[in-house]
Amino acid sequence: MKKLFALVYQCSAFRKHLPVVHNQLRFSHDLQQWGSKKTHRKIKIPNPFREVIMADPKVEEILAPLRALVKEQGDLVRKLKQEKAPEIDIKKAVAELKTRKKVLEDKELALAPSEELFDRSKMEDLIKRRFFYDQSFAIYGGITGQFDFGPMGCALKSNMIQLWRKYFILQEQMLEVDCSILTPEPVLKASGHVERFADLMTKDIKTGECFRLDHLIKAHLEKIKSEKNTKNELKAEIEDILVKLDGMTADEMSALMKRFDMKSPVSGNELTPPIEFNLMFNTQIGPSGLVKGFLRPETAQGIFVNFKRLLEFNQGRLPFAAAQIGNSFRNEISPRSGLLRVREFTMCEIEHFCDSKDHPKFESVKDTPMLLYSADNQEQGRPAEIVTIGEAVSKGIVNNETLGYFMARIHLYLLAVGIDPKKLRFRQHMGNEMAHYACDCWDAECLSSYGWIECVGCADRSAYDLTQHSKATSVRLAAEKKLPAPKQIEVVEAVANKAAIGKAFKKDAKAINDALANMDNVALEELQQKLNDSGEYTLVTPNGEFKLTPDLVSVKKTQKTVHVEEIIPSVIEPSFGVGRILYCILEHNFKMREGDEQRTYFALPPTVAPMKCAVLPLSGNNEFQPFVKELSQELTMVDVSHKVDDSSGSIGRRYARTDELGVPYAITVDFDTIKEPHSVTLRERNSLSQVRLPLADVPAVVRDLSNSKVSWNDIEQKYPKFEQQENAKGVAA
Amino acid sequence: MKKLFALVYQCSAFRKHLPVVHNQLRFSHDLQQWGSKKTHRKIKIPNPFREVIMADPKVEEILAPLRALVKEQGDLVRKLKQEKAPEIDIKKAVAELKTRKKVLEDKELALAPSEELFDRSKMEDLIKRRFFYDQSFAIYGGITGQFDFGPMGCALKSNMIQLWRKYFILQEQMLEVDCSILTPEPVLKASGHVERFADLMTKDIKTGECFRLDHLIKAHLEKIKSEKNTKNELKAEIEDILVKLDGMTADEMSALMKRFDMKSPVSGNELTPPIEFNLMFNTQIGPSGLVKGFLRPETAQGIFVNFKRLLEFNQGRLPFAAAQIGNSFRNEISPRSGLLRVREFTMCEIEHFCDSKDHPKFESVKDTPMLLYSADNQEQGRPAEIVTIGEAVSKGIVNNETLGYFMARIHLYLLAVGIDPKKLRFRQHMGNEMAHYACDCWDAECLSSYGWIECVGCADRSAYDLTQHSKATSVRLAAEKKLPAPKQIEVVEAVANKAAIGKAFKKDAKAINDALANMDNVALEELQQKLNDSGEYTLVTPNGEFKLTPDLVSVKKTQKTVHVEEIIPSVIEPSFGVGRILYCILEHNFKMREGDEQRTYFALPPTVAPMKCAVLPLSGNNEFQPFVKELSQELTMVDVSHKVDDSSGSIGRRYARTDELGVPYAITVDFDTIKEPHSVTLRERNSLSQVRLPLADVPAVVRDLSNSKVSWNDIEQKYPKFEQQENAKGVAA
Repeated sequence: MKKLFALVYQCSAFRKHLPVVHNQLRFSHDLQQWGSKKTHRKIKIPNPFREVIMADPKVEEILAPLRALVKEQGDLVRKLKQEKAPEIDIKKAVAELKTRKKVLEDKELALAPSEELFDRSKMEDLIKRRFFYDQSFAIYGGITGQFDFGPMGCALKSNMIQLWRKYFILQEQMLEVDCSILTPEPVLKASGHVERFADLMTKDIKTGECFRLDHLIKAHLEKIKSEKNTKNELKAEIEDILVKLDGMTADEMSALMKRFDMKSPVSGNELTPPIEFNLMFNTQIGPSGLVKGFLRPETAQGIFVNFKRLLEFNQGRLPFAAAQIGNSFRNEISPRSGLLRVREFTMCEIEHFCDSKDHPKFESVKDTPMLLYSADNQEQGRPAEIVTIGEAVSKGIVNNETLGYFMARIHLYLLAVGIDPKKLRFRQHMGNEMAHYACDCWDAECLSSYGWIECVGCADRSAYDLTQHSKATSVRLAAEKKLPAPKQIEVVEAVANKAAIGKAFKKDAKAINDALANMDNVALEELQQKLNDSGEYTLVTPNGEFKLTPDLVSVKKTQKTVHVEEIIPSVIEPSFGVGRILYCILEHNFKMREGDEQRTYFALPPTVAPMKCAVLPLSGNNEFQPFVKELSQELTMVDVSHKVDDSSGSIGRRYARTDELGVPYAITVDFDTIKEPHSVTLRERNSLSQVRLPLADVPAVVRDLSNSKVSWNDIEQKYPKFEQQENAKGVAA
Repeated sequence: MKKLFALVYQCSAFRKHLPVVHNQLRFSHDLQQWGSKKTHRKIKIPNPFREVIMADPKVEEILAPLRALVKEQGDLVRKLKQEKAPEIDIKKAVAELKTRKKVLEDKELALAPSEELFDRSKMEDLIKRRFFYDQSFAIYGGITGQFDFGPMGCALKSNMIQLWRKYFILQEQMLEVDCSILTPEPVLKASGHVERFADLMTKDIKTGECFRLDHLIKAHLEKIKSEKNTKNELKAEIEDILVKLDGMTADEMSALMKRFDMKSPVSGNELTPPIEFNLMFNTQIGPSGLVKGFLRPETAQGIFVNFKRLLEFNQGRLPFAAAQIGNSFRNEISPRSGLLRVREFTMCEIEHFCDSKDHPKFESVKDTPMLLYSADNQEQGRPAEIVTIGEAVSKGIVNNETLGYFMARIHLYLLAVGIDPKKLRFRQHMGNEMAHYACDCWDAECLSSYGWIECVGCADRSAYDLTQHSKATSVRLAAEKKLPAPKQIEVVEAVANKAAIGKAFKKDAKAINDALANMDNVALEELQQKLNDSGEYTLVTPNGEFKLTPDLVSVKKTQKTVHVEEIIPSVIEPSFGVGRILYCILEHNFKMREGDEQRTYFALPPTVAPMKCAVLPLSGNNEFQPFVKELSQELTMVDVSHKVDDSSGSIGRRYARTDELGVPYAITVDFDTIKEPHSVTLRERNSLSQVRLPLADVPAVVRDLSNSKVSWNDIEQKYPKFEQQENAKGVAA
């Protein structure tokens, strides 16, 4: 069970691969401002995609020996696994493989041609200033790991979710559900979260301040490494430890704490040994305080516990997919990196229940080219590759059509919401990440200034969850499938002498009869054996143990013709982290006007832009007002969200403001608007180009542009260019 | 503060007026099935609206003396208030007023002509069977007060919310936000929830089982009342107590428990005295266990704490409205009545911040007729009246245009989502419900089989919340308003001798300087006075108390010309309970086919119906498949949610199934479809009528019907009727 869980835990999104941000070690002060410590240096964002397509021979020359080292170790790991070597040996070899892989990847990123300089503090400033989002409860000092989305962030998020509904629920006819957040303990015990959903931490023994253990060790060792008089030998050893840290046990970390004599970085006090801290928020449901509950750590379990109802809704047929959009909660020990590791977040999760891994619509996506970083390439020191998903499935890189279909759909969705295709890859979990589990997991990762960020997990959870909930509740969570031909099977069942049991056990009779009815074949074999051998069998029930004798129960074997077989479906789970995708969209679309670094904007695609257009009267002239009002009403009629900005700034300043909000189009009412035939200018944010068009055309044009039914290019073809261009400073010439 | 809070608490939605359902007293068993005990009797739903418009003279004859009794008592209450009589006298008079009002209302409902017989258990059965919603975690025994929405309920809810966004966010250009659910304690201390958001309960002293006190008393007294040998005198007294129960204090309830010797209805054990139970779920944020947090009990506070950012986003201007859609949590002692009293629920809340109560768009709604039940009518024993909102505001029934505008918009929204106009009224809080608070509160109430249910609260919260958060954080939450003309004002401020203070108090100097800077005029007067009189002033700061002398601080008065004034805006708060509205929509639209009570369906308006149409091949004939597939693809292209039902049932059975799901249109592919020109039949759910139309027209027609751009009548005019009608049994003739 532990092993099984470890897998699911790893397959499931949002657990790993978040690079660590330094200089941010104090985290148990949960009332603390976000972004108060800014790094003002610019971050170089490498362009790995370009590197992949036009591999520079000189770069490859440098990388070749590193690749060879990875390959050598990858081969060793495989050999050890084939030979079924002791687990400790495999673990060591895997850790060494990771070290070598990390060295290679760092070098790759360092040598990759850099595409742009990204100024994170500048973007964060814009995000706060225009209230895309900001720290929650800031007037009360703020809470780390919690964010409030302002009007622009909220609209962006809501548009992303609407598009997600269209892409998945509508187009794939999924069954959307909306389940409870408060979850009673037994449900999360069965799923494994109560026992295993934990991180290691350590506490200051005097102040009680808490530190996430891996972060603490990392910061401590990096400090030693950076000190002048640290010997090169120790530096190399530390580097090695840092790479292996992720997979270390509590004991190994404890040993490191002792060896390097780690103290609280805040007070200098002693620290406790490692403590397992469960990441779920707990509470009590109801007034008695007796029903323990948690805030759900993922939305998936709500779907699993409703499996029977959903299957019935689908008229008993497989495959079908259920989906849920909602909030989940994780009590992170040290939330950090803005929206990337938070305590409360929105997920969109799909559970696709199936009995076959073929997919009827795979054909429609098979030519989609994607950047895939297979486990094999990772183990062999090779870079990610661009292949079509059709090729990937036919070559066996991706395990099956269903998984491939979802990966392609995820890819297309991410591009539609504004993820830069050059900064998107699918990384397969390596064999050792999945242990002995027969699933294939791919994470959609987006490159950001924090490194590669896992934004969508696409995992094969197999029948794990349904099996667990079946066991815990004795409710069969399975589907029936018609057999190609009827089949003779042997049915074994316990035949209870209900009258005798009732007489013998009174109020416990029901529990006994239920337990007998629920026995599986293995248990029935044992029952038969025991009754035959010793004339007695001890039955375990929720009401306690009971001794049964042959006069009370017997085992009957019969032949039966069956037309259906019972199957527990497999589950493919695409799991989207909305906040992480939103953050990456903002990074990928953050731009500065050429020649004016102060004029920043978000080049968001119209479909997800928080508002579709701005309506701007050229000045405060009263004659403009009726036109502005009419335009606003007509835009509302065609469901185009917009903003009227009749504040007193110059038109250039107001353009700059709408650019900052990511608004793609601006309509300006000027003196020519008043004249007949009435006309206005329409400006496109990215190109700064403008056209002049009849007033009456505007609502439909902006609506069609917003829905991507026409392109800006189409509009430029259709209407005369408006030449009174603004210059780079944003002032209309 | 207590009094102030009591108001806001009352003004805020979802606290009151939920009638009690009997035979459902065991509630601390939080693992318990929903709807397992069914009342199979049908409930008579009176039609109060009809009664209002065509008051029956005979009925009025019976009601007249009851009306007179209410009026007499209403007049007495007013008189006592005017005379500023002792509070205890007013309270007694109000309780008597409520008793008389209740007797009148019961009689009114009993005499009203009944419109239909509603079978709640039949509807609940349909809701469960087609998984609109059902109890959460049922396979684990279920939790009371928590529900999971299945595909149909979820789609209905999501469509209601999308329409809400259009009605309010888009059309009113509101600022939508999305704030954290986990809320640290200080925020909810300031709002008053930590201290006062509680219900009274009592516990079984042996088993610890909890009972909501008012429910327990009510059930106990009703049992006595219903017993044969209870004397009429006692029956009358009990009736009187029951009416007054709602406003009783803990002591009064405790006295009742003693007088009637109440025991646990489950075990017969003794009960504890009344206990205040806070309804918020609590948890700890972060690993240290030191930061206490709650799940928000309403979304409103998230908006208030972001007021400064929102005002800035709105370029400092008033009025503006912010809105939030999200989940809130209340740990009800005894959740009941299905979706009507739950522990986890979705709210849509608006906070309209304004400095004037006029509304620029009031003109556009002023002719909307609405059923208003004013405080005056309630106090005078008069029934609710239909008036236009314009008339209501001009007569002063509704306090101001802004409140009236929102009430009308709420009214229109509720009709659009399917609330029966005959079962919708706006009830004003009575003077005694609002105590001495200068606000006007109206609840939109829907009539259901549970009685009148408060679905939307529309309250004037005044400046209460912003003031509270300002006080708690020392952050000014106010707007600046330009004065018509500059004004001379006297500015009083404390002038701190910072050098001397620094020297005298060292590390506490900052706290002292901050406290001095934050003193209001009253405190400054006192400072001046004390320094003059005794040469010493004791300053209270977060760091403790400090004695200040004239060498450290002085008070300066200066004249200043100001161009703006600072104002704390008033807040109008429409607050929608999505689950309650959804439940009422289902009740109002639950129908049985004439002559066949087994054939039930939901006559949901197309805009909110979970799916817009079904695509049904007449039979399993393979020739139908390509047409079904093509239709499904084309409907998807135009964003029409639909369901293909190619299961084996007869077409009549499949029509009945789509009716149960509330799907308004069904497209049938039959043998004529295969012939050229290709055509299909289109069926409308409510009328059962069908037309035959060209295949190519279908997607656009269904889209336009779903968006209410064309009516079924238009379609019937345009296309030939298809005569092969199904009969009442649902079988195509």
